[in-house]
Amino acid sequence: MIKVDPIKVTVWNECRHEKEDADVQEVYPETIGGCIVDNLKPYGFDLTLSTLDDPQQGWPDALIESTEVAIWWGHRYHDELSDALIDKLQARVLAGMGLIVLHSGHHAKLFKRLMGTSCNLSWREAEGGERERVWCLKPSHPIAYNIPPYLELPQSEMYGEPFDIPEPDELIFNSWYQGGEVLRSGCTFQRGRGRIFFFAPGHETFPIYRDEHIIQILANAIAWAHQPHQSGWNLGNWGRPIPLEEGAPKQTYYKKPRKLMLAEKAEKVKK
Amino acid sequence: MIKVDPIKVTVWNECRHEKEDADVQEVYPETIGGCIVDNLKPYGFDLTLSTLDDPQQGWPDALIESTEVAIWWGHRYHDELSDALIDKLQARVLAGMGLIVLHSGHHAKLFKRLMGTSCNLSWREAEGGERERVWCLKPSHPIAYNIPPYLELPQSEMYGEPFDIPEPDELIFNSWYQGGEVLRSGCTFQRGRGRIFFFAPGHETFPIYRDEHIIQILANAIAWAHQPHQSGWNLGNWGRPIPLEEGAPKQTYYKKPRKLMLAEKAEKVKK
Amino acid sequence: MIKVDPIKVTVWNECRHEKEDADVQEVYPETIGGCIVDNLKPYGFDLTLSTLDDPQQGWPDALIESTEVAIWWGHRYHDELSDALIDKLQARVLAGMGLIVLHSGHHAKLFKRLMGTSCNLSWREAEGGERERVWCLKPSHPIAYNIPPYLELPQSEMYGEPFDIPEPDELIFNSWYQGGEVLRSGCTFQRGRGRIFFFAPGHETFPIYRDEHIIQILANAIAWAHQPHQSGWNLGNWGRPIPLEEGAPKQTYYKKPRKLMLAEKAEKVKK
Amino acid sequence: MIKVDPIKVTVWNECRHEKEDADVQEVYPETIGGCIVDNLKPYGFDLTLSTLDDPQQGWPDALIESTEVAIWWGHRYHDELSDALIDKLQARVLAGMGLIVLHSGHHAKLFKRLMGTSCNLSWREAEGGERERVWCLKPSHPIAYNIPPYLELPQSEMYGEPFDIPEPDELIFNSWYQGGEVLRSGCTFQRGRGRIFFFAPGHETFPIYRDEHIIQILANAIAWAHQPHQSGWNLGNWGRPIPLEEGAPKQTYYKKPRKLMLAEKAEKVKK
Repeated sequence: MIKVDPIKVTVWNECRHEKEDADVQEVYPETIGGCIVDNLKPYGFDLTLSTLDDPQQGWPDALIESTEVAIWWGHRYHDELSDALIDKLQARVLAGMGLIVLHSGHHAKLFKRLMGTSCNLSWREAEGGERERVWCLKPSHPIAYNIPPYLELPQSEMYGEPFDIPEPDELIFNSWYQGGEVLRSGCTFQRGRGRIFFFAPGHETFPIYRDEHIIQILANAIAWAHQPHQSGWNLGNWGRPIPLEEGAPKQTYYKKPRKLMLAEKAEKVKK
Repeated sequence: MIKVDPIKVTVWNECRHEKEDADVQEVYPETIGGCIVDNLKPYGFDLTLSTLDDPQQGWPDALIESTEVAIWWGHRYHDELSDALIDKLQARVLAGMGLIVLHSGHHAKLFKRLMGTSCNLSWREAEGGERERVWCLKPSHPIAYNIPPYLELPQSEMYGEPFDIPEPDELIFNSWYQGGEVLRSGCTFQRGRGRIFFFAPGHETFPIYRDEHIIQILANAIAWAHQPHQSGWNLGNWGRPIPLEEGAPKQTYYKKPRKLMLAEKAEKVKK
Repeated sequence: MIKVDPIKVTVWNECRHEKEDADVQEVYPETIGGCIVDNLKPYGFDLTLSTLDDPQQGWPDALIESTEVAIWWGHRYHDELSDALIDKLQARVLAGMGLIVLHSGHHAKLFKRLMGTSCNLSWREAEGGERERVWCLKPSHPIAYNIPPYLELPQSEMYGEPFDIPEPDELIFNSWYQGGEVLRSGCTFQRGRGRIFFFAPGHETFPIYRDEHIIQILANAIAWAHQPHQSGWNLGNWGRPIPLEEGAPKQTYYKKPRKLMLAEKAEKVKK
Repeated sequence: MIKVDPIKVTVWNECRHEKEDADVQEVYPETIGGCIVDNLKPYGFDLTLSTLDDPQQGWPDALIESTEVAIWWGHRYHDELSDALIDKLQARVLAGMGLIVLHSGHHAKLFKRLMGTSCNLSWREAEGGERERVWCLKPSHPIAYNIPPYLELPQSEMYGEPFDIPEPDELIFNSWYQGGEVLRSGCTFQRGRGRIFFFAPGHETFPIYRDEHIIQILANAIAWAHQPHQSGWNLGNWGRPIPLEEGAPKQTYYKKPRKLMLAEKAEKVKK
């Protein structure tokens, strides 16, 4: 019988709308991050809630190190995050931390860093929202476990194509909007050892994170993003001066300064 | 009959080895960039040579704008390039400039930006080089035009797996090394509108850019990377307040400050 | 100045609806294939029209051989095509013939052969059609040349997800339907040397092939699918008894029957 | 605590070499399939051994249905397998059965069906074999669990590029050969619900299936290929006459013969 430690999940929430906007407070009195944490609890994860206004912008080094899967919700204050922090987080994803980027996180520094593109898309924020229908393209994918062919979100912000991302490794969800647009709304990407899932639904003024299917998708994505194992070796800058094949040339001069090596070489040639 | 203007190609060369190392001067007296330019001339491209020590580190704004395909050779001084310049170049690639990254450019800031990964690999620089055999996997690909099933490079630096890149869109070349390693040595990636080709062969102390097949591959890659057309629209941050479908909700409040809008809303509710 | 021979395009049309259904006759009096051929003429292709009821089901050997890009429209009579013919056509695609599969061709034997999957999808054929909006995801792709961000088709048959295809190499178009569904409606796949483009729009009772943008997409796709060059070597079953590396083991016994070889070996061992 | 039933694995072995060739008998007295089964036992799978000469060519319907992951070893007698059986097996993979195709299985009917290509490659069968080095490109992939950066196989048959397969979803292993060739030797593909892993090492006259790392890779691949869950819905041909959006057109006439429908329509028009 297997004993598995619960996955260490950090839910990072910008958590400014919740302080600034009355309508967001109404929909998420416990904050967006708080709502996600509450709803993920029954799945048995080891959950930590963290926000932009916490020390180290919510990412002290020890937390970066211990987090196995991060969930990211940010929107208006992406630019406040320090580049040095983003450097650390990017390195942590490449080293194997799973990353689930939600909704307006498409413009988060960390996500743009990992994609290499602008991550622009088209958008429309109708006051009462509009209908979004999230179609599942891959019923057998781990992220689609227990999900019907489509979900209906009565109130959503339109996020539409063209979405400037690299071709996703896998396209899991494809959204329809009432106003006439579509979006690749659930995409996976592997970068280094890290698995990344972008998931579009989740506006701050609509109770999308109270939808049980949406929460199921997040729980599935955590389990999926956690999957890469930690083997004993990594994707490092790997000098291999000694070849594997007998008789093949070796690297000999790399240990001394190149100029010295060249000077010696020149000496030899003279003689 | 079609009249096509020649493709505007900028060959950017770090060009420091050529000043510092006698052995590089011996192999490339005309510099690496100069050799590439000379050998590409017969193909009819409109070629510009540019180096790190030129004004604006070789990339004045007008050149960034006019370049249709950039070839990139850098090695020891990647970090000297200013982040502001890399911002501009990344934006230019996303806007459609083709980019051909050669050999040690795998660690160039620009390439790492576009990949989102460390781009680490394993390596061995044997003094006289070692044999590399570049196998072609896709004989019908435009980049493989006129290329036999494999090329032999008698002297090469070993660049081996694991190579920390996103899964390439297409794997065109796969290299074998005398010492026992392998590498995905010719990979394509699309980012935004820009087409990117990474090509591993090309060390500063071996006359690889004098090999006619290698030059043919570069010429092919230029033609391929230039292909994306310039249509009238782009991958921008696209606000679409008016839906396409009649009766679907519109965005109404985005033009005034959100707080004002909310205050007015509250007023209305009171009444 | 370049002189290029016009691309040899064969438009294969099942052409039975046109004989059986009054409403199809009304929309396409010149037949579906005839309409496509007429509208592609201005682009300067060398066009051949061919149908299921022609000799060899429209594919005599000489035509298979000479066709550079095939356009495929079939629907109700996929199963009539002989397996032997499909074998030949599959081999021809793998050898480099471009293939553009339209609409109900998703269930064509040839397409299913090349995909390896069921190619099932969801569908609804409303009598007067319903609105489809085809969104372009890759404005710089050759297939999207001269195409705006979206096309509107006032009357279309709904073809929706889940669409059982391998992950496409590139997703170019993504469709929205009035009834609430979505589809990956423009997908590329490379198989062997052949480039394949599946494009969903195009029902027999709606004048979709009279839309100038749809025709532009077909013309673009022909140019794209024709691109793979014909180099001097192929993806064959390639015995290589002699290794490239000196001293590596050779294959010696393959020319005689294995049993004889083994018998001789046994003899040797005895001695 | 989780109680998981052991995965039902069927190891299908052509098992003719073992009857015909003395040298194969010497290396695999228990047969190739027998060796694989014996070595996988410690992992706790529910293993069934099956061969070409068993009833129904080793695939009675009940076994096809109950198998969760199939391992496939075949070589000289691919063509003996009936097309009807291959139809069933292909459908079973699309419905979710995992498939691990070994070595000469690259030319198995089932694999070619699922790929849509010739699956040709280059090859050399030196009498005593030659050295193959299997490089791992993705240390964090489930199939690479517990695998070092490279494996050395002192005796192997060369299987080299160009390998005529669709671009793999993931390239996990890349092989180096003593004679100078390379191969994408560990590739994943998803087709329908089914996960497929092609793994090149494993010749009949070399004891490759006695290598503990090779067996670890097979065990890893079984666990990975088994992962797709069985949700309540499938990738079927899905008629959806009733749209999801209110007011969108319905399909009305599909239940009666089209000709009758058209006749009625014509009647209406007359009046």
